[in-house]
Amino acid sequence: MTTRPLRVAVIGAGFMARAHSHAWRTAPRFFDLPREPRLSVLVSRDESKGAQLARDWGWESWSGDWRTVIDRDDIDVVDICTPGDTHARIAVAALEAGRHVLCEKPLANDPADAAMMVAASESAARRGVVAMCGYSYRRTPALASARRLIADGALGTIRHVRAQYLQDWLSDPDAPHTWRLDRAAAGSGALGDIGAHSIDTAQWLTGELIEGVSARLRTFVTTRPQRSAEVGLGGTGDPDSPRLPVDVDDAAAFIAGFSGGALGVFEATRMALGRRNANRIEINGDRGSVAFDFERMNELEYYSADDGDDRQGFRTIQATDPAHPYADAWWPAGHGLGYEHAFTHQIVDFVRSIESAPASPGFADAHQVQRVLAAVEESAADEGRYTRVR
Amino acid sequence: MTTRPLRVAVIGAGFMARAHSHAWRTAPRFFDLPREPRLSVLVSRDESKGAQLARDWGWESWSGDWRTVIDRDDIDVVDICTPGDTHARIAVAALEAGRHVLCEKPLANDPADAAMMVAASESAARRGVVAMCGYSYRRTPALASARRLIADGALGTIRHVRAQYLQDWLSDPDAPHTWRLDRAAAGSGALGDIGAHSIDTAQWLTGELIEGVSARLRTFVTTRPQRSAEVGLGGTGDPDSPRLPVDVDDAAAFIAGFSGGALGVFEATRMALGRRNANRIEINGDRGSVAFDFERMNELEYYSADDGDDRQGFRTIQATDPAHPYADAWWPAGHGLGYEHAFTHQIVDFVRSIESAPASPGFADAHQVQRVLAAVEESAADEGRYTRVR
Amino acid sequence: MTTRPLRVAVIGAGFMARAHSHAWRTAPRFFDLPREPRLSVLVSRDESKGAQLARDWGWESWSGDWRTVIDRDDIDVVDICTPGDTHARIAVAALEAGRHVLCEKPLANDPADAAMMVAASESAARRGVVAMCGYSYRRTPALASARRLIADGALGTIRHVRAQYLQDWLSDPDAPHTWRLDRAAAGSGALGDIGAHSIDTAQWLTGELIEGVSARLRTFVTTRPQRSAEVGLGGTGDPDSPRLPVDVDDAAAFIAGFSGGALGVFEATRMALGRRNANRIEINGDRGSVAFDFERMNELEYYSADDGDDRQGFRTIQATDPAHPYADAWWPAGHGLGYEHAFTHQIVDFVRSIESAPASPGFADAHQVQRVLAAVEESAADEGRYTRVR
Amino acid sequence: MTTRPLRVAVIGAGFMARAHSHAWRTAPRFFDLPREPRLSVLVSRDESKGAQLARDWGWESWSGDWRTVIDRDDIDVVDICTPGDTHARIAVAALEAGRHVLCEKPLANDPADAAMMVAASESAARRGVVAMCGYSYRRTPALASARRLIADGALGTIRHVRAQYLQDWLSDPDAPHTWRLDRAAAGSGALGDIGAHSIDTAQWLTGELIEGVSARLRTFVTTRPQRSAEVGLGGTGDPDSPRLPVDVDDAAAFIAGFSGGALGVFEATRMALGRRNANRIEINGDRGSVAFDFERMNELEYYSADDGDDRQGFRTIQATDPAHPYADAWWPAGHGLGYEHAFTHQIVDFVRSIESAPASPGFADAHQVQRVLAAVEESAADEGRYTRVR
Repeated sequence: MTTRPLRVAVIGAGFMARAHSHAWRTAPRFFDLPREPRLSVLVSRDESKGAQLARDWGWESWSGDWRTVIDRDDIDVVDICTPGDTHARIAVAALEAGRHVLCEKPLANDPADAAMMVAASESAARRGVVAMCGYSYRRTPALASARRLIADGALGTIRHVRAQYLQDWLSDPDAPHTWRLDRAAAGSGALGDIGAHSIDTAQWLTGELIEGVSARLRTFVTTRPQRSAEVGLGGTGDPDSPRLPVDVDDAAAFIAGFSGGALGVFEATRMALGRRNANRIEINGDRGSVAFDFERMNELEYYSADDGDDRQGFRTIQATDPAHPYADAWWPAGHGLGYEHAFTHQIVDFVRSIESAPASPGFADAHQVQRVLAAVEESAADEGRYTRVR
Repeated sequence: MTTRPLRVAVIGAGFMARAHSHAWRTAPRFFDLPREPRLSVLVSRDESKGAQLARDWGWESWSGDWRTVIDRDDIDVVDICTPGDTHARIAVAALEAGRHVLCEKPLANDPADAAMMVAASESAARRGVVAMCGYSYRRTPALASARRLIADGALGTIRHVRAQYLQDWLSDPDAPHTWRLDRAAAGSGALGDIGAHSIDTAQWLTGELIEGVSARLRTFVTTRPQRSAEVGLGGTGDPDSPRLPVDVDDAAAFIAGFSGGALGVFEATRMALGRRNANRIEINGDRGSVAFDFERMNELEYYSADDGDDRQGFRTIQATDPAHPYADAWWPAGHGLGYEHAFTHQIVDFVRSIESAPASPGFADAHQVQRVLAAVEESAADEGRYTRVR
Repeated sequence: MTTRPLRVAVIGAGFMARAHSHAWRTAPRFFDLPREPRLSVLVSRDESKGAQLARDWGWESWSGDWRTVIDRDDIDVVDICTPGDTHARIAVAALEAGRHVLCEKPLANDPADAAMMVAASESAARRGVVAMCGYSYRRTPALASARRLIADGALGTIRHVRAQYLQDWLSDPDAPHTWRLDRAAAGSGALGDIGAHSIDTAQWLTGELIEGVSARLRTFVTTRPQRSAEVGLGGTGDPDSPRLPVDVDDAAAFIAGFSGGALGVFEATRMALGRRNANRIEINGDRGSVAFDFERMNELEYYSADDGDDRQGFRTIQATDPAHPYADAWWPAGHGLGYEHAFTHQIVDFVRSIESAPASPGFADAHQVQRVLAAVEESAADEGRYTRVR
Repeated sequence: MTTRPLRVAVIGAGFMARAHSHAWRTAPRFFDLPREPRLSVLVSRDESKGAQLARDWGWESWSGDWRTVIDRDDIDVVDICTPGDTHARIAVAALEAGRHVLCEKPLANDPADAAMMVAASESAARRGVVAMCGYSYRRTPALASARRLIADGALGTIRHVRAQYLQDWLSDPDAPHTWRLDRAAAGSGALGDIGAHSIDTAQWLTGELIEGVSARLRTFVTTRPQRSAEVGLGGTGDPDSPRLPVDVDDAAAFIAGFSGGALGVFEATRMALGRRNANRIEINGDRGSVAFDFERMNELEYYSADDGDDRQGFRTIQATDPAHPYADAWWPAGHGLGYEHAFTHQIVDFVRSIESAPASPGFADAHQVQRVLAAVEESAADEGRYTRVR
């Protein structure tokens, strides 16, 4: 490619920063991009490991302070991979400085922060500056194909949305504490971490908004041992470590009403023993249905009421076929894609949106997810009473 | 068998009466029973077809009036397969007359009726007369095996119950009207018809009771064409027929709190296109999990946290192995059982309970299900507010 | 039914006799039959248990000698459920006596016997006497539906047949000896017991004949402990019992050429640990494919190349839908059928064939299976050389 | 990493060269490598696209002639991704020049070539020069985990190997011609392309060698339209194009005897409509079984006879758990890996073998696969007679 480079700074040094680093490196190798990404700066507060991570993940340089990066003229994109409580500050400053922003979900822990970010993104849009939120599951080919099916009317009128996001890495009561269990940093627990994905996916797939919810939250394990060192998700903490309080939910369940009349049932948990990353959604319309489970991420189940009486059934579609979104850039049919491919696709869509198209999901879309999360918490605090999303 | 015969009357002429007839005929051929059932009388209000059905299904005689049957000295068992609004009258009369009673679920449409039935069953029990309610799914070998696993502690403390009962025979808006869509006869819609099974199964498997619920009901299709004739479930009605109102729910969703602290999520619908009879339940404890789907009724999924790190996963157990309840009476392992086998097992357990054991589920157990159903309806009418089961 | 009774004698007292007994009793309850079966006589060489089995399984009387039964004027049907070495004698005598014959598979252990049986059946046919062989899997709704699909051209030209019949009840080297491991009684091992089903199913589904085979047989466990008593398939023998020789195959594999050009790959084994009764077949044509596994006997997988590019995939069809053969006689869609239903359907088809139609599979069809079995054994003895079916 | 760079040249410009390019770039980002790969030269005969591909895939330079590259002192590794007929020349020259060699499978089309390559690799090994063959499926975590289970004795004595490699990209008779259908370039058809993978996997998993085979080959479509341009696998050719002959097999089937006594059944086809890349293998021992299907590449099925009677079943193990080979370098459990990850793992193992360990599979291992392929062709030409692998 002989394109104008797109100079990127990533903020963060955790699991998500690594996934984004890989995606920035990989996207131009498999897709035609209007601009060539350049991995300019990695920002990590932990100076001792910043240089190492930058080298390991392929960044040209590193910095200990995100503020200095935003002010540099030679940075085009700020990619925010830090915990949710820091998003607003960084994103607003970056947008005001004219940087395109890709921000991990959840958009913000605090509703006021989220609203401020939306305002900043709208102002930026008028100056041609792009803001996108990282609901990466939208870029899984099977789900992107499901959305196309639904948009084409293959399901008819939607009646049911059934979404579960089941993990089990907190099932062990001695799994160590992490910032994801700290309300101040994470906003909420399973609800905001993984339930947010279900909400975004459900609204995006159906093209309908959640209007109200009736909810219940549960925390099964209220203290956990301090983690001795950064050892990834899961694992077993040292039982002799001091125990820290857990002030977020382990599990969230809610019933939702959709703008088009569909009935939604949602569950998010990190205690469903045996389910590693079962991000599942099923949608039933009056003409067809789709079902998806991220543990079999290359498959989409699709049922059509138009099939003949003796040959009706859920089809197991391999979303690696070239007819599916993103798939033809990769390998022949049946050669599966993995988790990180959705991040690569996200970079592709983000870079293209800089040149030509509105980013999706924009901050307003992500704000809508936050509003649903807020309604869930409000309903749960009000004995489950049906609470309007505002 | 050279046993004292057990003379049975079945009340009803529909789908359930047929399933029970087959079960009464089949049970003694595959199981040792303490008494030999004799299919004495079939009762059908429709006199024109009573004789025919009795002959087709193997009953010695027929009657048009259940009252006359109950008073006969030569009847030992009254097996009630009529719609829910008639259960109380028949069951109470039969118990008072000293007949053992097997009553289809739901126990009764009306809470007062149900309470009366419980009282009658308790009084009867003191006279050695047995009353059982027909929650037949308990007799599916895979579920009976799951219960044994849980009772043995294989799942540890239960955290999650996830139950869905998904059907689609009402998905077509022109599927004909039936008594199951008439509140007066059926009590409720998907909730009482199939959701009741999920409630019973969940409480029975976990050994915990549902203490409160937060619920929402939906009716998607509010009128349906009159059925021209008895043509079974489903099918398409004549669009030119007059349309009758549907005054029950098409779908029910509720979140439940269990007595042991588990979080339950329930959904019952007859509009989940592509799901014919997906009676599903998954239970996650802190040591293991089980999952079941009636569409694969001979399989039980089981996950054990005790398995080695590199060999953990849900096992697909074939419940046809002789180690599973009921299974060794039938065929070699891997030779599947069907829907009606649960009814046969129900007869086996019922007959044995007459001789020796308390019937399970008794009317009090079934009443508890009714109380949950009532709390669901109450919560749904109160904007989903968490409602105690009383 | 007010029909002329059809008086039946069953010969045998094992697993198959029991399955047939149940089927004879059940068929008229769920299907309209032109004649009403009457369970007249059970024949068991073991006089001590004949009376008991007759009573348990619902037969009016019993006899210790099949010859006396065949000569009785009041017997219309002889149903042969004995080991293969006895089939020819009984079947030929019964046909000559004018009895309709249903004979379990394999037709005969010896080719000359089989030829004689075919001749007897042809002679009988001219006198209106029916002979059918018990390849019961043809009556599984999912397979019967697959046959209809193929006959309708939904698969186009057949290229591949892939059939496996996998069991594991002999995996334990101390599983006890049985007549099925004795060449004189059983003819062969896995090959004739279960491989024969695969051969029949493959030829029947495709409408093509196997023309030649290249084969290999294996016996992994060459002696087994004597069984102390009749305890069903499987189980563990007493290690202290004397060990008897196994002179049949534990496993058979062969490659087949079909008359229409398809390439077949077959495997039959009773040593595939973990596979209880995986009777599997997949057929690929140039327009579509079907796949079936008896362990999920209510499901048929079907792939159509006519489906749109982004919605192609194997459909999991629930063969309990009323559009599938036999299914509408039973329960609503999604309420699974079991192993014995195929036997019930076999009786239905057999009784109907007595009144109106040629029996299928007739003895000539079953003889063709025997000829394939013989070619397999011949090829295996000749270093796997491709051997024509003669 | 501050390691001595490892300067790599890739030979080829097709699908495999792309997969290897990605792997060379990605391996050091996720794994600690003893030396840092440097993507020095891409070699493509097609000069017009060499520069473009080098740029797209991240190579520093390109060349039109592999000979010039091998002689360069600044190249450490030659990675051969060309059709099989060119492997021997390039590999032998590279090894003699002291370059480490990674060579795509099949090792060579011609047995004499393969033997020469083995000799060259042995000579090179004495000089510390490494040669590895690219049987990449060995690096799929699920299969690598299966091998560990088997090596640990979890399956006991192996009795059955059941391997199918099913694709369908040639099902359409107008799918265009490609070098893979030309015997001179490809050696054989489905047999050498995908059947070779099954052979390697089976021998590697079991630790046993195939000693003899009984085989049959089929070509269903004997001419195909010339491809207008390079458009990837599959697709539909222009029916107006001239048709070129297909002189390789579309499908191969063979029965195998293993050195440890196991019975193998193998099938490879590119005409199994609906199966995109079903690289399947099941192995049954006397203590356990494993099963794998690449279409669900992140799952391993495992059955243990040690499980309790009422809880035996195939476990669906998610090979993304960190306990599985390679998995902990990537994402949390349940976040699937894709096809290309095996190539990345292959680079990891290859680079490590340069520093410290014998490469596996070495050329001798790959030669053994070629010898099995030769025996298959010999047997197929000799009417399927069992043919020893020599």
